[in-house]
Amino acid sequence: MRPEFSDLSRFRALLAEAPPPDSEAAQAAAARNGQLTKPPGALGRLEELAIWMAGWQGDARPRIAAPQVIVFAGNHGVAARGVSAFPAQVTAQMVANFEAGGAAINQLARLAGARMDVHALELDRPTRDFTQGPAMDEGDCVAALQSGWSAVREGTDLLVLGEMGIGNTTSAAAICTALFGGAAESWTGRGTGLDDAALRIKTRVVAEAVARHADGARDGLDLLTCLGGREIAAVAGAIAAARMRRIPVILDGFICGAAAACLAHTVPGALDHCLAGHLSAEQAHGALLDRLGLVPLLALGLRLGEGSGAALAIQIVQGALACHGGMATFAEAGVSDG
Amino acid sequence: MRPEFSDLSRFRALLAEAPPPDSEAAQAAAARNGQLTKPPGALGRLEELAIWMAGWQGDARPRIAAPQVIVFAGNHGVAARGVSAFPAQVTAQMVANFEAGGAAINQLARLAGARMDVHALELDRPTRDFTQGPAMDEGDCVAALQSGWSAVREGTDLLVLGEMGIGNTTSAAAICTALFGGAAESWTGRGTGLDDAALRIKTRVVAEAVARHADGARDGLDLLTCLGGREIAAVAGAIAAARMRRIPVILDGFICGAAAACLAHTVPGALDHCLAGHLSAEQAHGALLDRLGLVPLLALGLRLGEGSGAALAIQIVQGALACHGGMATFAEAGVSDG
Repeated sequence: MRPEFSDLSRFRALLAEAPPPDSEAAQAAAARNGQLTKPPGALGRLEELAIWMAGWQGDARPRIAAPQVIVFAGNHGVAARGVSAFPAQVTAQMVANFEAGGAAINQLARLAGARMDVHALELDRPTRDFTQGPAMDEGDCVAALQSGWSAVREGTDLLVLGEMGIGNTTSAAAICTALFGGAAESWTGRGTGLDDAALRIKTRVVAEAVARHADGARDGLDLLTCLGGREIAAVAGAIAAARMRRIPVILDGFICGAAAACLAHTVPGALDHCLAGHLSAEQAHGALLDRLGLVPLLALGLRLGEGSGAALAIQIVQGALACHGGMATFAEAGVSDG
Repeated sequence: MRPEFSDLSRFRALLAEAPPPDSEAAQAAAARNGQLTKPPGALGRLEELAIWMAGWQGDARPRIAAPQVIVFAGNHGVAARGVSAFPAQVTAQMVANFEAGGAAINQLARLAGARMDVHALELDRPTRDFTQGPAMDEGDCVAALQSGWSAVREGTDLLVLGEMGIGNTTSAAAICTALFGGAAESWTGRGTGLDDAALRIKTRVVAEAVARHADGARDGLDLLTCLGGREIAAVAGAIAAARMRRIPVILDGFICGAAAACLAHTVPGALDHCLAGHLSAEQAHGALLDRLGLVPLLALGLRLGEGSGAALAIQIVQGALACHGGMATFAEAGVSDG
């Protein structure tokens, strides 16, 4: 999709004009749900999902025919501070693995019948170490938002967003600390598997970064510029593009959540079209979802990123729509409705 | 599969001889898991599932090629006591709905690529009201166990069990109260949607039933005979058949759990090949899973039965095996392993 913004101010204005879901389609879906051969409410969250999807797709019998998974990758200057268990070159190595089909997300996207796209964002130009200055300038951030926006395909009817970037849980922790307050400790976790000593270093880096950028920042997009990364901004851009087109989105873990939080902090309702695919094992993800008002579909202890938990959740949504679309009504089946 | 028992005593003896999982295959799967392109443990429960499946399938690269869903249906004399929000004829009506493909489980089985079989067990001959005497005699219970056993197909490599039977949460609550103790209130829930007054009646019925059969019963199979239903015994028979052939099983909700509990109480290790597909909204299901030592894969507020939550969980297991079988190793992908 072609981005219709060239600065953050226009991006904010666009997002503020995003359309609501189709309430008639949602009402029609709710009416159908009440006639299906099951006790009222017996399919639990699957019933809510089907009605919610009906609203966003504008169709009382929603379906998923063209799901898209996009993985964005970026490099982080702050990785040089020893905040990750893996070296920075793993970002590019994993992009090659995504392209060759060897990563977890490749398997999970294929299983869900989803198209998968990989966008590596200037890996040879890491963002600045944000303890020393803003990670990006406005132009960098806008370019990354545009990359994310453009990556959403015409015709996509369910979007899963994932990311890869050595150091990016540090960026996400800094964003959350700046947005929501509280101690850096409460938002900083072990990422890919830090030991206690490295976790202390990472926490100190997060605290430094937040202290440095606390004054200048105005809203979530300013914080995204100062503390984010290109892949995080691209996730935000893709969420926004989907919001404009009413394409439902499944968010993945802590980093996607931080990207989403930047939007939610900027424009109320910016995440109305988003589901939380899962609860990550990254320690602050639960608190982040609480702040965003999102209840995860799955909780399986994943902490991989790449969109993995969200891709797995596609099948839960597929299950909801399969029941909603395929079940007989009490009248059709000749079943007594209590 | 042909049942090799004609009384409960022989059934107990058979189950006590069930084979363990293949530890070599599980160890080989664990070794492979450690080499895949992800931080250690980052796929959380998916990693455990793949290794567990390797043990039961006896294959370091387990796969699901022939999943089978079986729904057993039975009628309960106790339904006449007003313990359900639906009339007893709904059991037969829903069996017709399963056969016509209109129920939730039909949609979810199809989505998971599973074969679905429906076995209606003497619907015109309900079990006895167990407040008045044993629900079944030994011959009835053995016949139902045999039906369940025989329903498991040769070649099935993952088995989902579901049930339908108006009144059967009352039977399951009575089984749990008798097996685990505690007040009838703590094990009795709203089933398909009872109001407070009907819940009080149901709880009293459960307490009466347990008081009547507390003395005579020896083990889980005796309780199954006194307090169960044909579909509950058939679920137990299918679980046991799968245990003998090392076929992994995904249990559904409260009623399947009660069937499983009868086996676990009779022979330790009888459920080693079982996963809990989901946490049902039926109030005592969480406590039952705790007693069985099972951690549910999903928790989406379902309370439908039919195997619905377990069928949805097939896709979680599929996701685990897709990652385990399809991901590249660090060496294959040229990714630095930290």
